[in-house]
Amino acid sequence: MKELEDRIRAEGKALNEDVLRVDMFLNHQVDCRLMDRIGDEFARLFQEDGITRVVTIEASGIAPAAMTALKMNVPLVILKKSASVTLNSSVLQTEVYSFTKQNTYQLTLKGEYIRPGDRVLLIDDFLANGEAAFGASRLIEKAGATVAGIGAVICKAFQPGLEKLRNAGYKVEALAEITAMGEGFVRFAGEN
Amino acid sequence: MKELEDRIRAEGKALNEDVLRVDMFLNHQVDCRLMDRIGDEFARLFQEDGITRVVTIEASGIAPAAMTALKMNVPLVILKKSASVTLNSSVLQTEVYSFTKQNTYQLTLKGEYIRPGDRVLLIDDFLANGEAAFGASRLIEKAGATVAGIGAVICKAFQPGLEKLRNAGYKVEALAEITAMGEGFVRFAGEN
Repeated sequence: MKELEDRIRAEGKALNEDVLRVDMFLNHQVDCRLMDRIGDEFARLFQEDGITRVVTIEASGIAPAAMTALKMNVPLVILKKSASVTLNSSVLQTEVYSFTKQNTYQLTLKGEYIRPGDRVLLIDDFLANGEAAFGASRLIEKAGATVAGIGAVICKAFQPGLEKLRNAGYKVEALAEITAMGEGFVRFAGEN
Repeated sequence: MKELEDRIRAEGKALNEDVLRVDMFLNHQVDCRLMDRIGDEFARLFQEDGITRVVTIEASGIAPAAMTALKMNVPLVILKKSASVTLNSSVLQTEVYSFTKQNTYQLTLKGEYIRPGDRVLLIDDFLANGEAAFGASRLIEKAGATVAGIGAVICKAFQPGLEKLRNAGYKVEALAEITAMGEGFVRFAGEN
């Protein structure tokens, strides 16, 4: 998505090969018109996939996921990050390790909000190591549903998540695919 | 907002006078078409207030706040909940007590995303004791900006937040104003 790549080039701040600050339009301050167009683009990319629900993980994925759900005219389900295991049979949980925060959390879903037969589009702001996406997919599949697509606003394609998810058979689309990054520079797929 | 009151009546679950479960359309599963109309309604209610930024607190307020910011054509800023104090002079923080979770957190904002002169519309999913709204207002005012309006999707008007905020001089609008609530019943303002 050229508009997104242009924004990352103009405003994003690559600090090193791990950290790309985009909190001026995506994470902390949010450009909702850009989110609206991101929703259009995800809806277009997954229009043939029979999506019945959009799912995201709190909190940075909510704005783009909400716009996507609106455009696709399906409900949004927000997976929660809980510090502890919940002793309630209707609640599904799976442990996820965060490389960014270097801790683990219990990704949590009330089972009633994803049903067997659902075809889920998972949307998140970043895809890097894929831990969050694999965790969310485990939960969605525990609920008896199918992960019909995974959409990342920004993918660090030089980290293992994208390849691992595709090798596991998932359809993954990224709106900005970064192939290399370091202090002060970002290179996108298709660039020299 | 009649549509919202009807949804609360039809689907919400009042467990006692403190807890109204609306996680089937607002908190966990989100009806984004309803959020879209909520955005229209907040934009209408605050159209004369010269709003330059919409601010919310992660995570449940993000979907309605993003729709509101889109309709008003202004940026959204998401205040973060941090467990610890950040030692960074460009970061503003204030301590907030959560009655729901019975803990305190540091409400956190990078100062660059709210500027002196900004007229902020604060949007949240619930208004009850007003701790979160007062905390967010302290941060916004620390940044040199003005809280030009506060919009709650649902207000428990029998708890002290609404009156305290209005007594402090804030313009507060709630889309569903609950005047009494208990196991299995909810009463809205204007009803007998």
